[in-house]
Amino acid sequence: MSRQINLASRPSGWPTPDDFDLVEVDLPAIQEGQVLVRNRFMSVDPYMRGRMNDVESYVPPFRLGEPLEGGAVGEVVESRAPGLEAGDLVLHGFGWREQVVTEAARVRRVDPIEGVSPSAYLGVLGMPGLTAYVGLLDIASFKEGDAVFVSGAAGAVGALVGQIARLKGASRVVGSAGSDAKVARLRELGFDAAFNYRNGTVAERLREAAPDGIDVYFDNVGADHLEAAIERLNNGGRIAMCGSISAYNATEPPCAPRNLFLAVGKRLTMRGFIVGDHSSRMRDMIAEVGGWLREGRITADETVVDGLENAPAAFIGLLRGENTGKMIVRL
Amino acid sequence: MSRQINLASRPSGWPTPDDFDLVEVDLPAIQEGQVLVRNRFMSVDPYMRGRMNDVESYVPPFRLGEPLEGGAVGEVVESRAPGLEAGDLVLHGFGWREQVVTEAARVRRVDPIEGVSPSAYLGVLGMPGLTAYVGLLDIASFKEGDAVFVSGAAGAVGALVGQIARLKGASRVVGSAGSDAKVARLRELGFDAAFNYRNGTVAERLREAAPDGIDVYFDNVGADHLEAAIERLNNGGRIAMCGSISAYNATEPPCAPRNLFLAVGKRLTMRGFIVGDHSSRMRDMIAEVGGWLREGRITADETVVDGLENAPAAFIGLLRGENTGKMIVRL
Repeated sequence: MSRQINLASRPSGWPTPDDFDLVEVDLPAIQEGQVLVRNRFMSVDPYMRGRMNDVESYVPPFRLGEPLEGGAVGEVVESRAPGLEAGDLVLHGFGWREQVVTEAARVRRVDPIEGVSPSAYLGVLGMPGLTAYVGLLDIASFKEGDAVFVSGAAGAVGALVGQIARLKGASRVVGSAGSDAKVARLRELGFDAAFNYRNGTVAERLREAAPDGIDVYFDNVGADHLEAAIERLNNGGRIAMCGSISAYNATEPPCAPRNLFLAVGKRLTMRGFIVGDHSSRMRDMIAEVGGWLREGRITADETVVDGLENAPAAFIGLLRGENTGKMIVRL
Repeated sequence: MSRQINLASRPSGWPTPDDFDLVEVDLPAIQEGQVLVRNRFMSVDPYMRGRMNDVESYVPPFRLGEPLEGGAVGEVVESRAPGLEAGDLVLHGFGWREQVVTEAARVRRVDPIEGVSPSAYLGVLGMPGLTAYVGLLDIASFKEGDAVFVSGAAGAVGALVGQIARLKGASRVVGSAGSDAKVARLRELGFDAAFNYRNGTVAERLREAAPDGIDVYFDNVGADHLEAAIERLNNGGRIAMCGSISAYNATEPPCAPRNLFLAVGKRLTMRGFIVGDHSSRMRDMIAEVGGWLREGRITADETVVDGLENAPAAFIGLLRGENTGKMIVRL
């Protein structure tokens, strides 16, 4: 027996608890080459909202009446596969459930790190960490001396973008977030300036926070954040287009940015990217960011919610910005 | 004595004839190192609209009460500079006037080409030609087999973009223009599909014209054209952001594109550029495009207006799309 969360209905606009079903299922018997994994942590991420729509995108949509998917870290309970044994810690894509029986090839053994929660493999040492690393360094071609602005800066990705930029010699690191508490946290993390985008307009706040302009914008939000960034970008500026959380639950497309024509005269480069295309950089990211993490030079906040039954609320809360750092569900 | 067009007032929205002053001026006596040039052709270009605003951009604004500037081709009438003599054809930036006395260093001698009007140095073999060449090949990283869409396709730049793409092995070349006559002309120039954007919506017309999507969009227009292109772009698509003629006279910024968030999942790259940054490619362009021109494999249409006094009307007509190919004023 296990429990899992199925997609009950496709949300129109904001997801509600009714869009999710908590169900009990029988686990199949474990076959040769398979493992039984008990999940300890699962990830909720903004991109999952897109998979709830019936639209083919870079990942196929979730199916109605079937369990949602996503990153999870679990412990092998029983193994009939060489190279894996009970007690091993594994990373895999079968989140949103307490236990899973799967082929050994579909899980990856990870090493426990002294003093670091295994949930780090869902955050700073996982997909969000790689997103921040690749987006800043490869997509936005960050170089020492650049002034960097990141939106959603208190989120899993944003907080890492700001800290990596600082460690790599940014001239200024600016972040936006949705509450005064988050803004205070960003200052503790070493951001030179941070603002609450709910206070006034993004354009006004960004003008104050980056009076000399910015060279790089890491976009997690879209819409008015993107418009404000385009206004502040210096000639030759670069935008890493990572996400558009403002649009995910919108039923009408936003009327922004309205100043994209400025990209011509400013010679801006804007690049959208999907972290899954860049897994070849995972080794570099873990070496560099993992080193900073062990040395205490980088901080990876987590907001932890307990219990599979609370995973839908954790996900909806994530979309509302209730997390600081990585939103994790502990099972 | 010479005649010139001064900027009388800064237009708000669409320019009107009252924003221009035709004035007679005394020419200064020619000094050592200078030349007296009688202009034969002058250019009117969309970017000039931006210079009429009192806004610092990549080029300084025109000054009130002073002559407008822009590309021109003229004939040396008198020379007190070595290397230039009466009768030489020269290219320079002192358009909007009949004659000019200037330093020899500020003009460039150009060779007459058999069977080609000297005005080509203001079009296919000049700035518009380089814009098309660099924008398609360097900025949008065009490669053989790409499907290309260009807006403003019957303009000086757009018509060259489409023809260069075809000569370089595009799988499909699609253009938009503002009249049925222009659309017919694009088909004659070898475009695989062309549509009149005033018939229905750009999104609908582009879906019909590029049913399998596009890989490159060369943007001269912005707004709804850009939105439609983003919708049709394939994964890994590229946009060369060259101009936004739809915005130049707008008093309110356009509410488009509203689908920029698609750039993430599609991994789009959008790059704004200014041709002045790419003059190192002029030699390559003239070699390659000039070769096609001599072989009759590329066609460079011109719309010619006679007389300096008609230059303001030619410029306003250009902004309204009254030209096919390069808009030239013959003096």
